[in-house]
Amino acid sequence: MGVVASLAATDRRSPGTAPVPAAGEDALTTLLGLVQGDMAACNRAIVARMDSPVALIPQLAAHIVAAGGKRLRPLLTLATARMCGYPPAAGGLRHVHLATCVEFIHTATLLHDDVVDESLLRRGLASANAVFGNKASVLVGDFLFARAFQLMVEDGSLRVLEILAGAAATIAEGEVLQLATQNDLSTSEDQYLDVVRGKTAALFAAACQVGAVVAAQPAPAEAALAEYGMNLGIAFQLVDDALDYAADQATLGKTVGDDFREGKITLPVLHAYTAGDAPERAFWQRTIEASEQTEADLDEAMRLIARHGAIRATLARADGFAQAAKANLAAFPDSPIRRCLAEIADFTVSRAS
Amino acid sequence: MGVVASLAATDRRSPGTAPVPAAGEDALTTLLGLVQGDMAACNRAIVARMDSPVALIPQLAAHIVAAGGKRLRPLLTLATARMCGYPPAAGGLRHVHLATCVEFIHTATLLHDDVVDESLLRRGLASANAVFGNKASVLVGDFLFARAFQLMVEDGSLRVLEILAGAAATIAEGEVLQLATQNDLSTSEDQYLDVVRGKTAALFAAACQVGAVVAAQPAPAEAALAEYGMNLGIAFQLVDDALDYAADQATLGKTVGDDFREGKITLPVLHAYTAGDAPERAFWQRTIEASEQTEADLDEAMRLIARHGAIRATLARADGFAQAAKANLAAFPDSPIRRCLAEIADFTVSRAS
Repeated sequence: MGVVASLAATDRRSPGTAPVPAAGEDALTTLLGLVQGDMAACNRAIVARMDSPVALIPQLAAHIVAAGGKRLRPLLTLATARMCGYPPAAGGLRHVHLATCVEFIHTATLLHDDVVDESLLRRGLASANAVFGNKASVLVGDFLFARAFQLMVEDGSLRVLEILAGAAATIAEGEVLQLATQNDLSTSEDQYLDVVRGKTAALFAAACQVGAVVAAQPAPAEAALAEYGMNLGIAFQLVDDALDYAADQATLGKTVGDDFREGKITLPVLHAYTAGDAPERAFWQRTIEASEQTEADLDEAMRLIARHGAIRATLARADGFAQAAKANLAAFPDSPIRRCLAEIADFTVSRAS
Repeated sequence: MGVVASLAATDRRSPGTAPVPAAGEDALTTLLGLVQGDMAACNRAIVARMDSPVALIPQLAAHIVAAGGKRLRPLLTLATARMCGYPPAAGGLRHVHLATCVEFIHTATLLHDDVVDESLLRRGLASANAVFGNKASVLVGDFLFARAFQLMVEDGSLRVLEILAGAAATIAEGEVLQLATQNDLSTSEDQYLDVVRGKTAALFAAACQVGAVVAAQPAPAEAALAEYGMNLGIAFQLVDDALDYAADQATLGKTVGDDFREGKITLPVLHAYTAGDAPERAFWQRTIEASEQTEADLDEAMRLIARHGAIRATLARADGFAQAAKANLAAFPDSPIRRCLAEIADFTVSRAS
């Protein structure tokens, strides 16, 4: 499993899966090396700032935050800031503190995303929050979210606050839209992409944009980095959605079928459903819309998705966004960090092939 | 039922209970009259700013926000700002926008407080969020929270952002502490008061402090209003906790026994438990610590609480905080609004007698 694939796994909280770097997958490792000191400082800030006299907060937060995730989103803030020349010669840690905010917002959304509804409980699905309970996950998420804003206030930039408050609102909108389209096979591809932009790509975009802001970049450069993050985030999520139906990933320690069991509408399903014949459509209506699933259904779903080339089609869409992300970097002078950011866009897709 | 009692009922989302003003309970009505235009503007801002292209967000938010609550917390922001001379002659709506933020933060915490755990579901407890589900409540709460910060950014005061981000973190800490002390009869009164300060009083304090900030008050006045809000909020919550075991409130449309069923540790319970004999302690251990309750147990709990004067003792503590709140107003020149704020502190307690 490659480094970026392990990031995806980390996002699903499978920290036990050790990354095994493979050919062509070195961009992320190189980038981590280029901002090593910054990332170490960010990790220290994360641990320091999630502390609270209420012991359950650091306990539960550590369960997620300190579980050894690769911290892709804060890495983007650190890397884009460095690429744009921050910190100046006099030094500065604003990028570290804002990368910490980005990670806290991400962690809060993970905790809140884990909240399960009665219907899912009834179907016997457990999530990471089962250890602590729904309510603790929600409240600790709230704490991290509030703490992120406290850190931003300390930083003192209203522009940064505007970007990250906006991203937080967009994330919530994307998550609610995902909930509203759940189990609904009449969801359009555009609606699906709106969900992806909101729930995933908005924070990638904000993480990169903030890097430009601390480096006092002009508006076009700031917009270009925001676009880079948006396109990268969409590619990242599309690949994640494809991998959820990729049978061979199961042997690599990645959970498969989560989206299917939850009745999430993703591009592989939409593609297979649209291309399917009447019995196939009936299958999707039963399993996704009516949430009536048996043990054998996931295999059948993967078979139908493979049959219609829906994984390939999804990855092709992802690659389009990855190429757009690379193009967004054209405005910046060549540098080792820029090369890494471009390669990460490529690898976000190639990891799945 | 008095006006402030109806506020408490509104906080528990029983909007069907119409307030019936009674003797000595007019301070709130008078205050609402004094800031009538501001409150109307605030209500318009609430509806306008909770909008989203994702239809489920305003739908669910309206279920809580627009259900006709009396908006005590935003009222405090509007009233304290006016008392301190804001807006100036040239006009201004900062207090209205920040009161909207305060209400959004309050609504977000209500939505998140409604999240139920599996254990509670198993015991058959339903909450308002049953209509939409846990997850939707969490995500719409997140949206309102993020939107509150967007409004603060538009306002542009880092000081206000600092106060409300700090309050949000403190609220989450209080809620987590409440969760950690749930079902635990060894909780101390100090811990209980920490919970109350966090989950309830911190936002009262911030709501009042923000009123001072927009009016550009000097630090001592700002601190005095924060203290007023803190003391008022503690009194408010203590009375609420007492009313949860006050049998005669049941006839007035107020739900009784919620705290008992959830195993919440509140002052009436701590008082009765501490004063109780061995069989009584066994009763509390079974019902609160082991969560083993029968239909008849609430009546027995109320009987034991009454027997040890625990309601009276709780209200006496509440009155101490109410008197402290009134004392915090001494720094301000006499005015109709100041008189109302003082009377509201009194009435917060007297509504329960």
